[in-house]
This record gives sequence, structure tokens and C-alpha cells, in this order.
Amino acid sequence: MENKIRVGIVGYGNLGRGAEAAIMQQSDMELVAVFTRRSPDSIHVINEDVKVVHIDEAKEYTDKIDVMILCGGSATDLPEQVPFFAKMFNTVDSYDTHAKIPEYFSSVDKPAQESGKTSIISVGWDPGMFSINRVMSEALLTEGETYTFWGKGLSQGHSDAVRRVEGVKNGVQYTIPSEKVIEQVRNGENPAVSKNDRHVRECFIVAEEGADQQKIEQKIKKMPNYFADYETTVHFISDEELKQNHAAMPHGGFVIRSGKTGEGNNQIIEYSLKLNSNPEFTASVVTAYARAAYRLNKEGQKGAKTVYDVAPGYISPKSAEDLRRDYL
Amino acid sequence: MENKIRVGIVGYGNLGRGAEAAIMQQSDMELVAVFTRRSPDSIHVINEDVKVVHIDEAKEYTDKIDVMILCGGSATDLPEQVPFFAKMFNTVDSYDTHAKIPEYFSSVDKPAQESGKTSIISVGWDPGMFSINRVMSEALLTEGETYTFWGKGLSQGHSDAVRRVEGVKNGVQYTIPSEKVIEQVRNGENPAVSKNDRHVRECFIVAEEGADQQKIEQKIKKMPNYFADYETTVHFISDEELKQNHAAMPHGGFVIRSGKTGEGNNQIIEYSLKLNSNPEFTASVVTAYARAAYRLNKEGQKGAKTVYDVAPGYISPKSAEDLRRDYL
Repeated sequence: MENKIRVGIVGYGNLGRGAEAAIMQQSDMELVAVFTRRSPDSIHVINEDVKVVHIDEAKEYTDKIDVMILCGGSATDLPEQVPFFAKMFNTVDSYDTHAKIPEYFSSVDKPAQESGKTSIISVGWDPGMFSINRVMSEALLTEGETYTFWGKGLSQGHSDAVRRVEGVKNGVQYTIPSEKVIEQVRNGENPAVSKNDRHVRECFIVAEEGADQQKIEQKIKKMPNYFADYETTVHFISDEELKQNHAAMPHGGFVIRSGKTGEGNNQIIEYSLKLNSNPEFTASVVTAYARAAYRLNKEGQKGAKTVYDVAPGYISPKSAEDLRRDYL
Repeated sequence: MENKIRVGIVGYGNLGRGAEAAIMQQSDMELVAVFTRRSPDSIHVINEDVKVVHIDEAKEYTDKIDVMILCGGSATDLPEQVPFFAKMFNTVDSYDTHAKIPEYFSSVDKPAQESGKTSIISVGWDPGMFSINRVMSEALLTEGETYTFWGKGLSQGHSDAVRRVEGVKNGVQYTIPSEKVIEQVRNGENPAVSKNDRHVRECFIVAEEGADQQKIEQKIKKMPNYFADYETTVHFISDEELKQNHAAMPHGGFVIRSGKTGEGNNQIIEYSLKLNSNPEFTASVVTAYARAAYRLNKEGQKGAKTVYDVAPGYISPKSAEDLRRDYL
């Protein structure tokens, strides 16, 4: 066996912890260090043997790490960190602000081209696996419609929104795809439904003592952008129930392409995820693409890349020969 | 828009006809000619403007065709034709004898390397899309099990087998995945079931007049390899019913990966196809990969390739920039 791929993690929240767990499952990778902006002593990693280092010292690791996995948030961390790290390391990240991806791509491509490193951006499940399935299934079924459904899943942004409502002590929000619409799509009916009509929203709220529940419910249901255009249900539960039943971070969804070939034959391609831990799955995807970043760089393919630029074989630990023999 | 990709089709059965229909849906491709071993006059293509040419004249087309789509059978046509055509053209084929793929790969790689052409082999849905999903989902969820289910679909080989039974006038066989096992897999139970227990077989038989139906049923159910190890149902129907309800070629199936991440969180990835026309879908996949063969060759990536070597962006008619902006 070749030497293992030496990996670093930058940022140790849910995603960074998931990346550590994912690397532990890979026989061809080793985790060299976790880098943090916090005090390294305050970080408790899963494997106690792994070094935790302040992010300012990362530059000392350029010859000790083959790929850096960036696990910060898309709002402010990644746009600042990835262009900086791409000057020194191959990188992978899960940047997910869809509308700003072209701009982000350029900001990473320039330093990576200059340093001769490879950076795969926006890796995860959406953007990521769902993106691949949207593009491939459209290429296979040229005439048709693609439907993306998210859920059932805990939405961080919407949960934050309900928790800001007056009288709400705590709460979570689930995005749920409409069963009725999924059924129509699976039957090849190609319904003309907006993104809003494809999903319903369900909230579980712990109200402050003495708060007016009807008022809370109305405030949530009328909240613009977040809830007003959706069918929304609000349940009031106890603190205890919230802790017991709503602490996990499940998510998932579907990409369905419904197309026609030849003389009007319906053909349906469906890709779906049912995830009990959203951050752990995202981290697993990012970790597999760290392997691809390393390999692409060895082949001289430099600069910023997306999942569209990475052949499936590059994310597998197996050789091309083994894949042909055992998996085709 | 650039010049269109100039495509040729070799062989005009169900798959060749499907490829013609698929090319008609592509705005960046044009079909130059169909090549056949039969008398060209005997072939009736969909678009009457398309030339039908004898296969021996294909060598006159080396500067008129960018990619050749080989639509023959895996038993004898492709092993002979593809190594020969790879000396002159970029090629794509749907070779599907899983066990012989390594040997077939070598037989195509050598001439393609020598001629500087690119040949993508074993493209379709299995091998093809299912292969990609087996490899990618295992790379993402390292610890787990992958289950491939086929059907509900008409199996050509098994239909041929039942038609050879004494007293059978005509008949078809459907392979049907076991609902019970699919449910267990989707629930993350990772059942230890053989390929045989994952599928049941259903036959629709038109018996010869006066034939002993019980005897036919027993012969089918006890046929080694084909039926003996499966749960098999046999229905007797009329000639008319067969024509009316069993003339189509539906197929499909599922690849499900059920894995665990972190501290034991279940994660499930499922890819499924529901095809009303198996040959038209296979042809659509092969046609999309013709685009990839053309592009890879332009980039200097020569020799034999499989779907594992082709990045998703290469099969799409859109530019990398458009894909990043609109599909990520």
C-alpha cells in the first residue's frame, strides 16, 4: 500500500467532527491535525492522539499535509479561509451559498492556479451529490423535468427563525416534501408546481410560560420568506419532549428526473438520501473528495474544481483496475 | 455554437434505433450515417434523410464522423467490432458481460492507444449508471452494504429460456425485486440475503394447443440457473393478451447503499430507475457518453475508458461555467 493521504481539518464544529469520524473509516488516510481559531486546549477531538493546533500555525504544515478539509460556515468563514489556504494546500470545502458559487469559484481558482494546488469547492449533498444527479439525469433524459425535494429534515435557518419569535423558548423546524407532489412526479405526470408547493413546514415549539400560543402560531405562519408561502403546521411541546425527540439532525431528499425518449416512453431517474445525521454525511462526502483533490493534483490538474470535474473513480480508494473488475 | 458532434451508429436493432432517437434530442449532435451488415436497403431508419451504409464502407468515414456508437450485442458483435473500430474512430458501446469486462477493456485499449482514439466501454445503466452509484455510494459510506435490485423488468435471456420449453408457443419473463427485502434495506436493516432471494420471477406463457400446462409449469420452475433457485410464478394467457399487455420492454431497478457514520448513524443512498423502454434508455446513456468520448479525445485522453473515468460535466452539453452557475 502507498503512503496514506495526510489530511488536516480546519474548524471543529459538527462538520469538522464528522470529518474526523469519516477519516477514521478510511484505510488510505490519516488525520495529521485539527486547526482551530479557538484555544486548542478547549477542543476535544474524538481521537485523543490527534493534534489540535491554532489556525495561525497551519503554514508550518505545508509539507506535512496533502489535503486540507475546510469545515467552516459559508457565510463568512469559507470565503475568507479557502482562498487563503489554497495558496498553500490542496483543499476541499462544502460552500453552499448557491447564488454566489461563480464568484466564490473565481476567488479560489486564482490562488490555487498560482500555487499549483487543487481546490474542490461546494462538496456535500446539495450542492454535491444532488448537483451531480441534476446534471447527469438531464444529460441522459434531454426532454423532461427535474424536481429536487428536500427533507424530511431539520432546517437550521428556519429553526433559528422560529426561535426568534416572541414567546418562543425553544423550537425546531422540519422541511417535509409533499407526498402528493412526489407521487405525481414518480408517475411521470410532470406537475407544474413551485418549490413552495413541493414542501410543507412543520414546527415543534416550546413556549415561554404564560405565552399566548395562538399568537406565536400566527406569527410563525405569517413570517415572510420563511413560512408565509408554505403550508405550515405548528405543534407545542414540552422542553423535555424537544430534547428527547428533536435533538438529532436528520435530513435528506430526492432528485427526480422525469423524461421521455423515442416515441414518448416515460423514463424516471430518482436519487434519494435518507440521512440520520446531516453533518456526518456531508463530512463523509467532503472526505471522499479530499482523496480526489489529492489525486487530481498529483496528475497536474490544478486550480478550483467542482464535483462536475471529478470522475467517479477518483473518490474511491480502489484502483481503476479493481473497479472495472468488481463494480462495473 | 461550435460545430455539431458528428455521430455514426453501427448496428440497427432496438438499441441502434434508440440511439437514433436519442441523437435527435441533442442540439449539439448530428447523425451522419447508420452502418449495417445487412443490405442497407432493408433498413428503415426514423429520419429518412439519414444515410444507411454497409459496414464495410465505414473506413471511408474517418474524417466525417467524430464518434461511433456501437449498438451490437455483447456475445459476438462488440468483442469483434469495437477493437476494429477503435483503430479509426472514437467509440462508445454498451458491452454488458460483467465477468469479461477486464479482458474486453484490454482488447479495446490497445488499438485505441495506438490510433490515439478514445473508447468508452460498457456504458448503459448496468453496467453504467448503477456501476457509478455502487462505487460512489461505497466511497461516501465506507462502512455498510450495497444492494442492487433489478426490475420490475422484462428479461430477454429468461424469456428466451421459457420459450424453449416444450409446449410453449410464446412467453415472457419478468424479474421482480422482492418488496420485502427492499423494505428491509431501506430501513437500514442490512439483511443477509443472496441475489436469488432479492428477486422473484414471473412468467406469462402462451401454451401450444393441447399442451399440458402443469408439465410446462414444472419444467420452468425446475430449470437450473434460470428458475430453480428463485421463487417463480407461471401464468397462462392467450396469444392476444401477450401481444396487448407484454409487448413493451420496461425495466429498471435500484442500487441502495446502507451505511453508518460517526457514532452509528444510519445513512441511506438510493438510486433508482423506472424505465418504460429499456433499449431507449440505454441508448440515451450511450449517446450522452458519445459526447464525453469526443471531448476526452480532444483533451488528449486516449485509450479505453469506463464510466468511472468520466467526470459528470463531460456528458452534459452545457459549459462548466453554466453548470456551476445553474446546477450546483
